[in-house]
Amino acid sequence: MELKKRTYSYQIRPQMVDFQYRITMAALGSILLTTAGYNADDNGFGMRRLQEMDCAWVLSRLAIEMNRFPEQYETIHVETWIKEVGRLETIRNFCIRDEKNEIIGNACTVWAMIDMTTRRTKDLQSLVGIHEFATGEVGLIEKPVKIGTVEGEEYDGFKVKYSDIDINGHVNSIRYIQWISDCFTLDFYRKCNVKRFEINYANEILFDEFVEIVRYEQEPRDYRFEIRNENKTACRARVLLV
Amino acid sequence: MELKKRTYSYQIRPQMVDFQYRITMAALGSILLTTAGYNADDNGFGMRRLQEMDCAWVLSRLAIEMNRFPEQYETIHVETWIKEVGRLETIRNFCIRDEKNEIIGNACTVWAMIDMTTRRTKDLQSLVGIHEFATGEVGLIEKPVKIGTVEGEEYDGFKVKYSDIDINGHVNSIRYIQWISDCFTLDFYRKCNVKRFEINYANEILFDEFVEIVRYEQEPRDYRFEIRNENKTACRARVLLV
Repeated sequence: MELKKRTYSYQIRPQMVDFQYRITMAALGSILLTTAGYNADDNGFGMRRLQEMDCAWVLSRLAIEMNRFPEQYETIHVETWIKEVGRLETIRNFCIRDEKNEIIGNACTVWAMIDMTTRRTKDLQSLVGIHEFATGEVGLIEKPVKIGTVEGEEYDGFKVKYSDIDINGHVNSIRYIQWISDCFTLDFYRKCNVKRFEINYANEILFDEFVEIVRYEQEPRDYRFEIRNENKTACRARVLLV
Repeated sequence: MELKKRTYSYQIRPQMVDFQYRITMAALGSILLTTAGYNADDNGFGMRRLQEMDCAWVLSRLAIEMNRFPEQYETIHVETWIKEVGRLETIRNFCIRDEKNEIIGNACTVWAMIDMTTRRTKDLQSLVGIHEFATGEVGLIEKPVKIGTVEGEEYDGFKVKYSDIDINGHVNSIRYIQWISDCFTLDFYRKCNVKRFEINYANEILFDEFVEIVRYEQEPRDYRFEIRNENKTACRARVLLV
């Protein structure tokens, strides 16, 4: 039973931090996805096993709440567990602790499994063995919710490049987090801290496509983002600052 | 004496690889800088020690030659040692091996130490203790040479953003490697492999400055790059493909 919740540790390397020595939201997201990957592997439902089944996990939603951003050379301990396995999606939670074992942040992710041939979502009910990992244990933060259409000014726009593309031939999920984080100035980061970062992934963007990023300040320090190409929405996000 | 050469191991995480499952040059550069940092720390001349002296290591040149790019989930072993400590610069070599202990690549870096107050290069002759780490052992590749002015077309241009900036308030050294790697298409990467990547760092670029990237194909599959802001050259690079 012990194996249902596991902890993975990471040292914050210089390449993961920003100008204030703090881990970036993108690097933190990357650690969470790595952790999810390790734990899925440990549970027997990792990417390599899924490749044999011609399936893949797709991240559909992610929420991260931080009390404190760990700094360069700190070690963090990321505990993760599956809360539930529904028919079409599974919820994985994370609790992030520092070296003093204090909780510095929490995260919640929602995943779907897709069939690589049909590109359709798989029914998880028939997946033998995965259900026994569901603990039912809720996380310490609210799960990511659906974010509506974002009406706002175009903040930035550019073409997708080589380093944006992952093994699936699409823009890497983490890259969107970086693009959104890049919509604030250094001066802004000196004055504000991100309290909650929340993202809904919708459609994939391909190499050489032009993307535009729309930013809208819905309430003071509560921003909505939408990243789209010519035809479709790639993702929507919310950044709540304090 | 054993401590003069040390090996550090890394697993290639999904976030480090490109669309062909191979580590990107930027992620590889990041691993080399992390390795240099660990080893400098182990030798007693790490970043934190230098901060106490109000100094910092500055990477001035880097060359990487790869026979094979390691793929997602492989573990690589990076051996590093100081070849020499000159008056104004020190040479650190790297040898990269795979799990079968086969050499898959080599790298050579040239570093200067700067005084953070005067912003001038320090004389390393007076630095007690560092000279005993110099092995005199040459690396398996030629050290990075000076790259002349690059005349060519402007390939790309954009403003520097939050995630580009490191703790020194300048564009991160690794980001330049990414920007240069992004000057080739996916189709190009399907047909060619980077054999040697070489970069000279010159001047720092700051937040919100506009950078332009000049690319020139000097010989077939032998490219030169220059990244500059309005007034000065940030770096020059050579990318040799096979």
